[in-house]
Amino acid sequence: MSINIGIYVYDDVEVLDFAGPYEVFTTASRMHMRNSLDDRPLFNVFTIGRTMSSIRARAGLKVDPDYSMSDHPVMDCLIVPGGVVTAELEKPDVIHWISGQSAPERVVASVCTGAFLLAKTGKLAGKQVTTHWEDLEDLKAMFPSMDVLSALRWVDEGSFVTSAGISAGIDMSLHLVERLHSRTLADRTARQLDFDWTENH
Amino acid sequence: MSINIGIYVYDDVEVLDFAGPYEVFTTASRMHMRNSLDDRPLFNVFTIGRTMSSIRARAGLKVDPDYSMSDHPVMDCLIVPGGVVTAELEKPDVIHWISGQSAPERVVASVCTGAFLLAKTGKLAGKQVTTHWEDLEDLKAMFPSMDVLSALRWVDEGSFVTSAGISAGIDMSLHLVERLHSRTLADRTARQLDFDWTENH
Repeated sequence: MSINIGIYVYDDVEVLDFAGPYEVFTTASRMHMRNSLDDRPLFNVFTIGRTMSSIRARAGLKVDPDYSMSDHPVMDCLIVPGGVVTAELEKPDVIHWISGQSAPERVVASVCTGAFLLAKTGKLAGKQVTTHWEDLEDLKAMFPSMDVLSALRWVDEGSFVTSAGISAGIDMSLHLVERLHSRTLADRTARQLDFDWTENH
Repeated sequence: MSINIGIYVYDDVEVLDFAGPYEVFTTASRMHMRNSLDDRPLFNVFTIGRTMSSIRARAGLKVDPDYSMSDHPVMDCLIVPGGVVTAELEKPDVIHWISGQSAPERVVASVCTGAFLLAKTGKLAGKQVTTHWEDLEDLKAMFPSMDVLSALRWVDEGSFVTSAGISAGIDMSLHLVERLHSRTLADRTARQLDFDWTENH
């Protein structure tokens, strides 16, 4: 069985916020297949839009989602990228949907300002989280019950994982590859991406 | 006048190869606008397909190009990402088009295995180039007249710039922001991306 990784895409989503995790999980799957007799992908990675309509990422990149919010495979992991999240925060159906993806045996992970969308579900109350360095104060102000941490690439609270800004989504996704499979595969994936994995120390 | 940055997208293009440069140039533009009285974007960034049809990047991401190869603005800089380039190498119209974008006052830059497409134009003969660490030997074997370098993030030959694997496209794009505008803007962009810029030393 593949591990299903869904990535939410919406108008004004930051391009690297969703493309970084997309690249990490699909490359990890490719690396895994090279070293395995199993020809099924380890990770089944797909994008999900609110509807099936094309979205325009921040600065205009046009992406067609693979699934809509109301019709997609059950996910083991949902990635919520950041960007300009103002409009998404005002969509009760989106927040309700994100909230509904969380379960003890699953992971909902945010990149950058995606943390605001996770926070809006109310499920992060009392938990440690992080976001883009520029948005730490706003996140604290909007959600005073959370413990907002700075100077970390990601914060793993089990069912919820949040990352710092933009490129930190790559670091966090490598951490999720380690968590969902192995350290060896995460290292091999970073090497394939020619990427200097910055971890929390 | 904006500086026109075109990014070629094609079936099996590596997602981070095109998304990294897209993010760097659009973020640089945003950072520039914050500190400027000029409300025109510094960089006008767009994707170009062979045709206007949707492309399926490596692992399936669906992207709709902004322009086609036969109808796009004049570019100051063309980015040619890597991925599975086998099919593209066999398309004379694509190679001819890439070749036609080069001019002394412009830049054609490759990420990762995009170097094979640039090399196929014949214009890199005698020049220094680089590519993904896994493909260095193949590039040397296919194009023996080029000087293929390893252990560098990018190689700047003026009109042609080539980068190492996948994430090195982000490092190279930051270099191009410095070259096309300023070191200050490149540093500010890296900081905004929360990215640890790896330079050549």
